[in-house]
Amino acid sequence: MPPHHWEERPTSALFTDLYALTMLQAYVREGMAEKAVFDFFVRRLPQNWNYVIACGLADVLHYLENLTFSADELDFLAELGGFSQEFLDYLAGFRFTGDVYAMPEGTIAFPLEPLIEVVAPLPQAQLVETFLINQVHLQTLMASKAARVVHVAQGATVVDFGTRRAHGTDAAVKGARAFHVAGVAATSNVLAGRIYGMPVRGTMAHSYIQAHDDELEALRQFTSLYPETVLLVDTYDTLAGVKKVVTLAQILGNSFNVRAIRLDSGDLATLAHAARRILDEAGLHCVEIFASNSLDEYAIAELVSKGAPIDGFGVGTRMSVASDAPTLDCAYKLVSYRGRGRMKLSAGKSSLPGRKQVSRLQEGGMYTRDVIALADEHLAEGEPLLVPVMREGKCLPAGQGTLSAARERAQQQRDLLPPRLRSLDAANPPYEVRISELLESQRDQLRAALES
Amino acid sequence: MPPHHWEERPTSALFTDLYALTMLQAYVREGMAEKAVFDFFVRRLPQNWNYVIACGLADVLHYLENLTFSADELDFLAELGGFSQEFLDYLAGFRFTGDVYAMPEGTIAFPLEPLIEVVAPLPQAQLVETFLINQVHLQTLMASKAARVVHVAQGATVVDFGTRRAHGTDAAVKGARAFHVAGVAATSNVLAGRIYGMPVRGTMAHSYIQAHDDELEALRQFTSLYPETVLLVDTYDTLAGVKKVVTLAQILGNSFNVRAIRLDSGDLATLAHAARRILDEAGLHCVEIFASNSLDEYAIAELVSKGAPIDGFGVGTRMSVASDAPTLDCAYKLVSYRGRGRMKLSAGKSSLPGRKQVSRLQEGGMYTRDVIALADEHLAEGEPLLVPVMREGKCLPAGQGTLSAARERAQQQRDLLPPRLRSLDAANPPYEVRISELLESQRDQLRAALES
Repeated sequence: MPPHHWEERPTSALFTDLYALTMLQAYVREGMAEKAVFDFFVRRLPQNWNYVIACGLADVLHYLENLTFSADELDFLAELGGFSQEFLDYLAGFRFTGDVYAMPEGTIAFPLEPLIEVVAPLPQAQLVETFLINQVHLQTLMASKAARVVHVAQGATVVDFGTRRAHGTDAAVKGARAFHVAGVAATSNVLAGRIYGMPVRGTMAHSYIQAHDDELEALRQFTSLYPETVLLVDTYDTLAGVKKVVTLAQILGNSFNVRAIRLDSGDLATLAHAARRILDEAGLHCVEIFASNSLDEYAIAELVSKGAPIDGFGVGTRMSVASDAPTLDCAYKLVSYRGRGRMKLSAGKSSLPGRKQVSRLQEGGMYTRDVIALADEHLAEGEPLLVPVMREGKCLPAGQGTLSAARERAQQQRDLLPPRLRSLDAANPPYEVRISELLESQRDQLRAALES
Repeated sequence: MPPHHWEERPTSALFTDLYALTMLQAYVREGMAEKAVFDFFVRRLPQNWNYVIACGLADVLHYLENLTFSADELDFLAELGGFSQEFLDYLAGFRFTGDVYAMPEGTIAFPLEPLIEVVAPLPQAQLVETFLINQVHLQTLMASKAARVVHVAQGATVVDFGTRRAHGTDAAVKGARAFHVAGVAATSNVLAGRIYGMPVRGTMAHSYIQAHDDELEALRQFTSLYPETVLLVDTYDTLAGVKKVVTLAQILGNSFNVRAIRLDSGDLATLAHAARRILDEAGLHCVEIFASNSLDEYAIAELVSKGAPIDGFGVGTRMSVASDAPTLDCAYKLVSYRGRGRMKLSAGKSSLPGRKQVSRLQEGGMYTRDVIALADEHLAEGEPLLVPVMREGKCLPAGQGTLSAARERAQQQRDLLPPRLRSLDAANPPYEVRISELLESQRDQLRAALES
C-alpha cells in the first residue's frame, strides 16, 4: 500500500504565517473561540481559462487530523518572544476539532464558489489558513493547467516530465498527483509513483548518448537492456539519429522491439513528419513518435493542427509551473462568526457572507449553470457540490476518496461541460454562476450595515 | 542552533526522474563508471534580467552527503520492475563520492557560466541531476527575483509574505531563505525562521477585524496585547480605518506605541499620501506606513516614483512564484567523460565542453567582465568564482557557508555591478562574458568531430 501522503511525518505546525499565531493569542485572551466559517474560493480565473479542477483536499484533511505542536516547536516560539506561557500551554493542547465541507477532488469549479468550507472554533479555523491555501492553490492550479494540456492532446498520451523545474520537491510530487487527476497518464517522478501508486515512465537523457563515443553504439547498448524502450534521437542531428534507429532495426531484425523515438528539440512538427517518413519507409510503422521540449497546451494545439504524427507528449516546465498563469487569484476568508455573516469591503476583494452550498444544474446531459446559495436554503434543484468531508476533526468517508476516483470524477465532469468551456480560449458566454436571491440580499444588507 | 536544513530526514533517493535509474542500470552493466563532469548553468536570462544570484548549494551538498537508498525504497523499485537484483544490490551500496566545485551562494552569475560543477563517477553524477536542478533552479530564481524587488525598494524594508502562494511547502521555506540571501529583511513563515534562524514578522489579517463587531474595538484589543504592532486599516474603508487609529492614539495617549499601519488594497500611492496626511495632522509622525497587495519590482518602482510615503513593503505572490519569469532556462549537462569533452548539438541547446573556471575582472571598483575558461588554463587575471566545496563526498569548509555570509556576498557583489546592470530593464550593453580562446577552439574542434 502506498502511504498516499508526501510527508512520512506530519507537516510542522510552524508552517504558518506568524500573524496566525499573533491573532490566535489575541483570540484566546479575548475568549473568542466561537464557531467561525472560512471559505476557500477562486476570485477570478486566469485569462483564457474557463474553469478549475478542485485538488489538494486529501493533503488538507491529513494535515488537519495530525496538527499538533511538539515540545521543541513550542520552545522555539518561546524563544521567538511575544507569546505568553498561558498561550503556549494552549498551543500544547491544540487539536483541530472542526467540520469541513468540500468539493471532492476532481470536481470542476468556477469563481466565487467555495471549494472548501472550514467550520471550527475561530482560532482553529484561522491557524490552518496558510497550509490550506498553500496546498489547495498549488494543486488546483496544477490540475487545472494539466486539464487544458490533456484536452488539446486529443487522446495522445501526456507524461509529466516537470519534476526538475517544479518549484521545489513538494510541488514536484504534489504536481505529479494533480496532473494525474486531470488526465495525465504518468510521471517521471519515482517518488510520486511510490507515494501515490501512479504510473512512472522514463528512458534516457542526452548524457547517456554523449557518454558513449558513438551514438549508434549507445542506442544498441540501451536497447539490449531495455528492448521496448524509447530512444532519444536528437543529441547531435535528429534525422541522422532516426536513421541510426533504422540501422539498429536492420541489425536486430526480429528482436527489434523499440516502442518509440523521442524528439526533444527543433521544429517538432517538421521533424515528426520527416521522422515518420523515415520510419515508415523502413517498415517501422509500429515505432511511435514521442515529443518533448517546452510544450504546453498552445504548442501541442499547434502540433495537432499541423497534423504532426506524434503519439505522445512529454510535458515539463510550462505545465509544472503553469508558466502563463503561475498563480490563481484565490482566498480563504472569514464569512461567518458567532452565527453572523462577515465580509470584507476592500477594493476588488469583497467576499460572500455565510455558510454556503453550490448546486450544479444539467440540461440535455450538459452542465448549464451553478447556483451559490446559503447552506440552509435547501435548493430543490441541481446536484449539491459541497459534501461533509470531516466532522469534529475526523475524516469522513467522503474525504477519503482515492486518486483514481478523483481522476474519474474530473473526466466525467469535463465530459459534461459544454464544448465552448473546454476550449483553450475564454468561453463566450462564460459558464453561468448565479448567486441565490437570499444570499444576494444577505450580502447587500451586511454591506449596508458595514458601510453605515 | 537551527537545523539549517528543511528536511529533518534526508530527501528520498526516489526523488528522481525514472530515466536516471534506467540509465544507471545501463551504465553499471556496461561498466561505465569513469569520471564525468556535469555543469549546471543558466542558458539565457528572462527578459529584462541582467544577472542571477546563485542559491541552493547548501541543500545540494546536504543531499549529496546523505544520499542512500533505504530497504523499502529498494523494495519499491523491485516491485516497479525493470531492475535486476544485481543493480538493486548496487543501489543498496550507493554513496556519492565525487567532488563539487561551485560559486558560493550569493554570487552573481551570468548565462553559460557553471554555477555548479559535479565531478564524479558517471552513475553518481547522473543520479543527482533531478534534485540538483530542482533546488538550484528554484532557489536561484527566487534570489534573483527578490534582488530586483529589494533594489527598487531603495532601502525600504521588504518582508516576504509569499508562503501561501508559493508552490508548495518546500518552495515557501526555501524561497524565504533565498529572498533573505537577496536582501529581503524577514519572512512571515515561522518554520523558515526556525530552520534558518532568520527574522520572522507578522501581525494581523482582515479576519481579525471582521471577527469583531466593531473595527475600533478590534484595533484597541490587538494593541493592548501588542503595543508596538502594525495595524491593518483597509478591511472596510482605508481612510476611515486610519482615522480609527488616530482615535485609538487619542484614547491611549502616552501609552500609544503602534509602529505602523498596513494598506492592503486600492490605489496604494494615493492612499499612502492621504494616510500620511491624516497621521501627521494628528501628530503621529512616528507611525510608519507599510504596504502590501500584488507587489513586485514594477509596482514598487511606480510607488517610489510617485513619492508614496511607504516605509516598508510586504511582498507575496508575485515574488514567491516569480510570476513574470517563473522559470529559468537552465540545464545540468555532461561536459566531460573519461577526460574527453562532451557536448550536445541539439538546436538551441548546445553546451561548452570540459571542466571550467569563471574569472571575474574589475576596473575602478566595478565588475567589467567575466571569462569562462578551461579549469586548467590558470588565467592570470581576475577572481576565480568556482571554488571546491566537496571532496570525495565530504563537504569542505567553503561549502558550509552561512546564510548571513551568502547575504553579505550578494550585497557586496551587487555594489560592484555597474549601475546599468542593477536596473529593472535589460542593460545595454549587457554584461560581457567572454569564452577563452582555448575553450572556444576546443568547442569548435569537438563540434566538427561530432558533425563529421
